[in-house]
Formats: sequence, structure tokens, C-alpha cells
Amino acid sequence: MSGTSTGKTNAGNFFEDFTVGQVIEHATPRTITEGDRALYQALYPTRFALPSSKEFAQQVGLTEHPVEELIGFHIAFGKTVPDVSLNAVANLGYAECRFHQPVVPGDTLRTSSEVIGLKQNSNGKTGVVHVRSTATNQRGEVAIDWCRWVMVNKRDVEAPAPETFVPDLKSVVAPEDLIIPAGLDFTGYDFTAAGETFRFGDYEVGEKIDHVDGVTLTDPEHMLATRLWQNTAKVHFNVQARTDGNRLIYGGHIISLARALSFNGLANAQLIAAINAGAHVAPAYADRTIYAWSEVLDKAETAAPGVGAMRLRLVATRGRDESMILRGDDGKYADGVLLDLDYWVLIPV
Amino acid sequence: MSGTSTGKTNAGNFFEDFTVGQVIEHATPRTITEGDRALYQALYPTRFALPSSKEFAQQVGLTEHPVEELIGFHIAFGKTVPDVSLNAVANLGYAECRFHQPVVPGDTLRTSSEVIGLKQNSNGKTGVVHVRSTATNQRGEVAIDWCRWVMVNKRDVEAPAPETFVPDLKSVVAPEDLIIPAGLDFTGYDFTAAGETFRFGDYEVGEKIDHVDGVTLTDPEHMLATRLWQNTAKVHFNVQARTDGNRLIYGGHIISLARALSFNGLANAQLIAAINAGAHVAPAYADRTIYAWSEVLDKAETAAPGVGAMRLRLVATRGRDESMILRGDDGKYADGVLLDLDYWVLIPV
Amino acid sequence: MSGTSTGKTNAGNFFEDFTVGQVIEHATPRTITEGDRALYQALYPTRFALPSSKEFAQQVGLTEHPVEELIGFHIAFGKTVPDVSLNAVANLGYAECRFHQPVVPGDTLRTSSEVIGLKQNSNGKTGVVHVRSTATNQRGEVAIDWCRWVMVNKRDVEAPAPETFVPDLKSVVAPEDLIIPAGLDFTGYDFTAAGETFRFGDYEVGEKIDHVDGVTLTDPEHMLATRLWQNTAKVHFNVQARTDGNRLIYGGHIISLARALSFNGLANAQLIAAINAGAHVAPAYADRTIYAWSEVLDKAETAAPGVGAMRLRLVATRGRDESMILRGDDGKYADGVLLDLDYWVLIPV
Repeated sequence: MSGTSTGKTNAGNFFEDFTVGQVIEHATPRTITEGDRALYQALYPTRFALPSSKEFAQQVGLTEHPVEELIGFHIAFGKTVPDVSLNAVANLGYAECRFHQPVVPGDTLRTSSEVIGLKQNSNGKTGVVHVRSTATNQRGEVAIDWCRWVMVNKRDVEAPAPETFVPDLKSVVAPEDLIIPAGLDFTGYDFTAAGETFRFGDYEVGEKIDHVDGVTLTDPEHMLATRLWQNTAKVHFNVQARTDGNRLIYGGHIISLARALSFNGLANAQLIAAINAGAHVAPAYADRTIYAWSEVLDKAETAAPGVGAMRLRLVATRGRDESMILRGDDGKYADGVLLDLDYWVLIPV
Repeated sequence: MSGTSTGKTNAGNFFEDFTVGQVIEHATPRTITEGDRALYQALYPTRFALPSSKEFAQQVGLTEHPVEELIGFHIAFGKTVPDVSLNAVANLGYAECRFHQPVVPGDTLRTSSEVIGLKQNSNGKTGVVHVRSTATNQRGEVAIDWCRWVMVNKRDVEAPAPETFVPDLKSVVAPEDLIIPAGLDFTGYDFTAAGETFRFGDYEVGEKIDHVDGVTLTDPEHMLATRLWQNTAKVHFNVQARTDGNRLIYGGHIISLARALSFNGLANAQLIAAINAGAHVAPAYADRTIYAWSEVLDKAETAAPGVGAMRLRLVATRGRDESMILRGDDGKYADGVLLDLDYWVLIPV
Repeated sequence: MSGTSTGKTNAGNFFEDFTVGQVIEHATPRTITEGDRALYQALYPTRFALPSSKEFAQQVGLTEHPVEELIGFHIAFGKTVPDVSLNAVANLGYAECRFHQPVVPGDTLRTSSEVIGLKQNSNGKTGVVHVRSTATNQRGEVAIDWCRWVMVNKRDVEAPAPETFVPDLKSVVAPEDLIIPAGLDFTGYDFTAAGETFRFGDYEVGEKIDHVDGVTLTDPEHMLATRLWQNTAKVHFNVQARTDGNRLIYGGHIISLARALSFNGLANAQLIAAINAGAHVAPAYADRTIYAWSEVLDKAETAAPGVGAMRLRLVATRGRDESMILRGDDGKYADGVLLDLDYWVLIPV
């Protein structure tokens, strides 16, 4: 045995390792702390008052001080990588992501995934795996769940194709399916502390908002973030993992950056309730400068006092695009678009 | 409305938007955590025993464990940027900054500013705005207050000039106006734990101390710091925001770096009680190596047991200047000087 | 006095300043916080379940949630630098390092060192200093102790050589001298949460494990880490401190990186119990990609329920070496080897 590797390391799953109905319990439960909140503040230019201030959270009815929803999402997501997407060619999409309750320091998240769809590609070399992942806390309660589908390499191109099954996922989480955090009450909302006066009624469907500011990416920053989420995808950390010698930036880093930039114009979009869909349109690398714009896609009432729901498209671009054009005449994403995220926020009416 | 930006973003105030007596409540209250302490330790080479050790703090009479004074200052200051200095050309000076009580994890700071002076420049394009800013905690108590003045662009050069009013600010906080933290008692001070034997009586007015060590700046580090303080000035983060393509380093980053370097020779200057004046003499960019030296400007007794006050000039330089020359024969700052900070510290007698 | 430096700064000790039996109390006690845990997670790709999850720690019998052993080690070690190794030419070795109890947030560590050996080198310019360092917590209990020896410059080459005394240090901590954390019980160990199924019985002495993944180093990251440990060695931070203009990466950064990479294949090696020996074989700089492999050196039972001890060699390399060759035929370390660390871990039987 001496002198040879003994196959104890994780090579990840390949397409033929998945079966519909299979449930994978992912490793490494993770306790969230105030350290995560501070690092998130250092990594992204976020200024939303609720995750920034314990008092603001209490004033809107939350007894504990939640961290940003995306902290929970990135941590829960990161756990799925070694089992689901270590051999992925591409992360194709998200759907039906709901935040069931705020994540607070002291919570411990673990994640499991159920394989809900499989479709081998016609080239026989890859296939699409659909999973529904569920993050639960230390009380066994659901904190976040979501679906995603990824294109995964086959280990053996000769392996037989599984029966094709493509799940029927909702293109949008219905407003009545949004989960409002227990106790949330925006009737006494402090707009001055929050930083802007615009409320639910001030936004119109179709309206676009150019968030103005840009941030130039660096390698150390995205690596710090991605490690914090215990995401192990090699391409983010190792210049030898790709032929071009670049570190590919974790798509979630761009989501968090764009969400933070969206404060300027959407300061009262305090909580993310759901993610309907998301596409990482183009890769991002260090030294590019990222901007963001948003479009109001829909609006809905909720049962919580003073709380409205607004469906937004959040677009991250490489370089500023004041025209805010998502797609060209050919229907393809415009040059420079990196992220197209469709999500629901909670905002005072 | 579709396809156009709707003016919901903050463009900041211009010179003609300010009036003397105006009070601005700044956005985004911010809860300080142990995560801030850890990040500060990672970002600056600080070794002062009091913010480093809960036990040391208790031994000198503080029941809770304060974070470094500059954490509170940077956070409180950052809140003023979107309203006061987003369109600033230059940060001209500070005065009358006092630390009213230690900031501890769990405290939530918010900041308001009163406009206390206005003077349009003769070119008609800019003007100087003086503000007195006050950071209060969750109990409504003052934590920190300070004055600063900035040169701000006019939106419309044709806008009429306001009546000139320049406030009469003290050049130095008088020793009797220094606020000593409740309970502070240096009579049982542990010089071994603190790292140096030099006390109040060992320093002479006029004495200079070369702090020896240098730190080479990087872009990711100053951006992490500046974001942590929720400071939104574009020039720190976006290489497209300046014609030279450099990220300008937040002046407060240099203050914190120089203060941390000053440990070597001033290890017992545990607490900052006041900032009398400060000038960011020259801009700082990545790849420069920063050194610091100090000069003892004054000494004073305090009413607290074993606690003396020492007024120091802290100078940060690009490259080491063992001659410690502040100004040339022409009265101008010597080449390489980046920061000239005049402040009061508390030190065991 | 005006205009001249007054010798208040620490120049560190030189070889002739040490005497056998001398005890040095190092400065700057340091309270560990949840911020340290979060930063460690951001800086290293660690996924060990015990320091990641409070619940996992409780399930194996630990009432409080320990941070990684290396956080305590780096902090305790950093305190010795200003007194022991500020004028060191080389860090020559470690021995007899034991972790006496887990370090948890809220603990405050301080370190003292006893000089246990001195040997002037034949060139008369340097000498080897052996110290035994002990980190104690706020209750005065030993948390960690270790020996190391460093080559230190003489201030004055004419200073007389001290009597040579070389301590007799154990090459390996005997299994019966390992200290198991109070309450540790691996009988109900959750292998799914931990991420791998391999237990004590699955590893054979002589077995080697290639940990597969690599991380490309950056300057900001190692500086953040090294500052967090309050390690003041100039060469890590200042490009002007070395003739080649490179920042030398703190050897402990490579230890932590390799330990984190070793998760892939050693996920159940949850706790470090002792470090038997360590050599920083070659310097590391930014832009190099670091990989790691391990060799099982020994195995031993312990008195704790379900807890085995495994002695490992952890090797960090610049570039991946799938052959896992430590030394060439000439007995010298193979090209690319950066670290050779011999340590004991605790693992479920």
C-alpha cells in the first residue's frame, strides 16, 4: 500500500451515479455566527438596515437578528457541491427557492438533496441532473429549499442512459406560497434608518432601476467568500484547474454583489422571500467591474401587516449599461450580462 | 416608464443642497459584533492589549470588552458619506472629535449630522461644508462626535452662493474636556501583558518615536475594511471611477494602519480619547509601503486613577523616514507624508 | 530629544540576550471569538464537522464549541515572535507540542517561554535558541505547549558564546501522553455529517493519501491570516524587508492550508492532539499553487470511548506530486516539498 494513493478521496458523483428518487445527505453541518455577518459586510457593499441593525430587526417584529438570506443560501448550497456538482460542466438553473425562516447566528444548517430529474444529453458524454435541496436547522425545521439543475459529466460514456425524467418546476413561486417570517410587521417601519423613502406603492411593474455604482473584482475577495460557504469547486481557487489559468468566480459571489449594489434604489427591499429563477449568463473573473440594474416584474400583497411582495429581476453586468437592455433583437442575452436573477422581496407597503 | 431609470437612486447632496442648521439623519444603523473585532485584527497589525483581551479590559475596570475606538469612528463616519461627501472633491479636515464611551459588541450606532458652516469657493464651482456629526447608540447616548469639513461640488454653478459662515472650532480638545470611560483605573495596569514598560512619565513633550515597521498596501485589504464600515465612496472600489484607474485608499484605512504600527513604542497608549485635527496630506494606493512615526505634543493629568492623557501627532509616510521631518523649509509637508493626525490617548501614569 | 528617535521600540532579542532557564512572559493576551472561527473558514478550505458545527461538537461530548486547534496554536505562537524570533534567520523545528484542552470562543490566551537550550554556531554570527512555550487561558490552565528552536542573529559577533546546552526532546509524543478533551466520546459519531466513512480501522500504517485539491496563494490572504495571529515578523508584510521584494508567507499559513486540504481523505481526523515535529522545508510566496498529501505513520488506542489516535505526516507541495515522494535518493527533500509535519489526530475507531 505504501507509496500509492488509496482511493479515500472524494471524486464526486458522475451522471451515471444518480438515480431519480435518490436522497443524498450532504456533509459538514455549519453553525452561523456573527463572524459570518461581519465577513459578509466586508465582502459586499450591503447596507440593508435589517441585517445591519439588531434594533431595526426588533422594530419590525423579529426577536432575533437575521443574517442576510444569501448567507444561508450560499452555505446551504455549498454543501451540495461535493456530491452534486463536483463534476459539473455548467450550472443551468434554479427554481422554487424559498426562504422558510430567517437564519440567525447560532443556527446550524445541514443540507440534503433529492434527485428529481435526469436526462442524458444526445452527445452521450453528459447529462442533466435535477435536484431539490433542503437546508434544515438544528431543530430539524426547513430553513431554505430550492431546485437546481446542472450538466454533469459521465464517468464512462458507455454507461447506459437512464430513463429520462424532467420535473415540472414552477417558473415563478406564487405570491400565496411566499413565507413571511413570523412576527414581521412593517407598519412602524423607519424609512429614515433604512435610507430611502420609496415603498411598495412607489414602484411600478416594468420600472427599471440603474443602481449606478460598480465594484471591481479581485481574486482574494471571491476566494474568501467562497471558502466561507465551504464551496469546494476547484475552479474558484486553483489557477491550474482551468486551461486559461483564470480563477472562475463563484456565481453566488456575483449574486451577492449585485444584491448589495441594488440597495441604491431598492433600500427597502429588506428581505428575500424566494428565488424564482436564475441564470449565470457569462463567467466572471478578477479585474472586471460589476454593475447592476433591476426591473420590477410583479407586485403582490401579503397577509403580514404592512408587508408587500415585489418580484424583481436583478441583472449584473460587466461594465455599466445605462440602457438596461437584457437581450438583443436575436433574443440572446446582451453582451456584458453576467447574471439574470428573478426573485421576490418583502417591502413596506 | 419601462426601459428608463426612475431616479430612485441617491445622487448625494451638492453644495447648494446644504443650509446652516440643517440636520441630516443618516441611514443604516449598524450593530457592532465580535466579527468586527476579528476583522480589524486581520486588517491592521494591532496589538494593544485592551481591545485584544477581555481580561485585560476587566483588569482596568471596564466591565465589557470595547472594540478599538477607530472601529466605532469608521462605522459612524461611513454613515455620513452618502449624504455629506458623495460629491466631495476633498476631505479637508477634522476637529473636536471625542469618544464619549467605549463601543462594545452588541451596540448599535446611528449617526446624524448638523451643517455648521458653508463657504462657497471663489471659483463658483465648489464650496466648503462644515458638519458636526454625532453617533448615538441604542440607548440614545452619544458614543462619538466630531466635526469635519469637506469641499463639495455644486450641481449647478449658477446656483446662488449661500451666506458664508465658518464655525469657530477648537484647534485642540482641552484636556479637561476629555471623557474618560466610566470605571477606567490604570493603578493595577499589567505592563508585561501590555508589552512595554514606558508610562506617562517616560515620554517628554517634543519626543519623536520611529515605529520602525512597514506594511505594503493591497487593494483587497483596503476594500474589505472600507466596506466593513459601509463607506460607499466610489473611488475606493471602482477602477472606472477615476481617470488614472487606481483605487484611492480610504483615508481612515491609513489612520488605522498607522495607529496599529504605533504600538511599537506606544504600546501603553491604550485608548484614543479625542482627535484634535487630521489631514490626509496625500493619496495612498496599493503597492506602497506605509510606515509611521509619532511626536509627543502635550501631556495632561486626568481625574481617573492612574490615567494620564498624552497628545500625539501620528504621521504616516510612504516609505520610512527615519529623520521624521513633517514639513520642509517652505512649510509644506515633506514628500512622502500621507497623514498628519493630532489626537489624545490615555496612558498609565 | 526633539527630532530623534528615543529607543522605545522593540528591537527584539539577539542570541546573546538569551540564557538557559530564562522565562519570558510574552505580551498581548488575546481573546478568541466567533470572528476568528469565521475568518479561519474564509482563509482555509476547512470542512471538518467538529469546528464547523456546534451540534456536531455536542454530539461527541463537548459542551462548548471548540475552534480549530491551529487557531489556538497560531495565536499562542504569534505572541512569542517579538521576543524570540524577531531576529531569527530560520525557524528550525518543533517538538513536543500538545493540545491540553480545546480552545473555545471567550477564552483568552497568553504565552510564556522558557529558554531550554543554547548553542552558538561555529561561524560566531548566529546561534540556536531552544524554547519551551506555554499558552495558558484565563483560568491559568495550560491550553497548548510546545518546543521550538530557531537560529537567531547575534547583535555583536564579539559577544562570548554561552555554554552549549541542547535539550533532549522527544522525537514523538508517546500515545499515552496524548491528552484527550474531557468528555470526548466518538461512539455515536455521525459519519454522514462528517463527510467520509473511513474510520481508524480503515487506515494502515504506511498508507499514503493524495488530497487532490490545490489552492493558489495570494498576498492579501496570508497577510490577513498572519495579522489575525498578531504575528509581527516583518518579512510577511513588507516588500521592503527582503532583498527580493517578495513577501515570505508565514509557515503556519501553509500548515493550516495543508491541514484543510487533508479533509479530502481524512475527514474524520477531527482533532489535532499533538505535533511531534515540523519542518518548513522551503519558502512559499504568492501565486504558487499548494497541494498536500499524507502518510499514516502510526496508530494507537486511547482510553476515551470510540476514540483512536493516528500519527500522520502531512506534506505540502508546490504543485501536485501524485508520486508522493518525500525525499530523493540523496536523502534530501524532494523539489517542491514545502512542509513536513508529523502530528497526532483523534479519529473514531
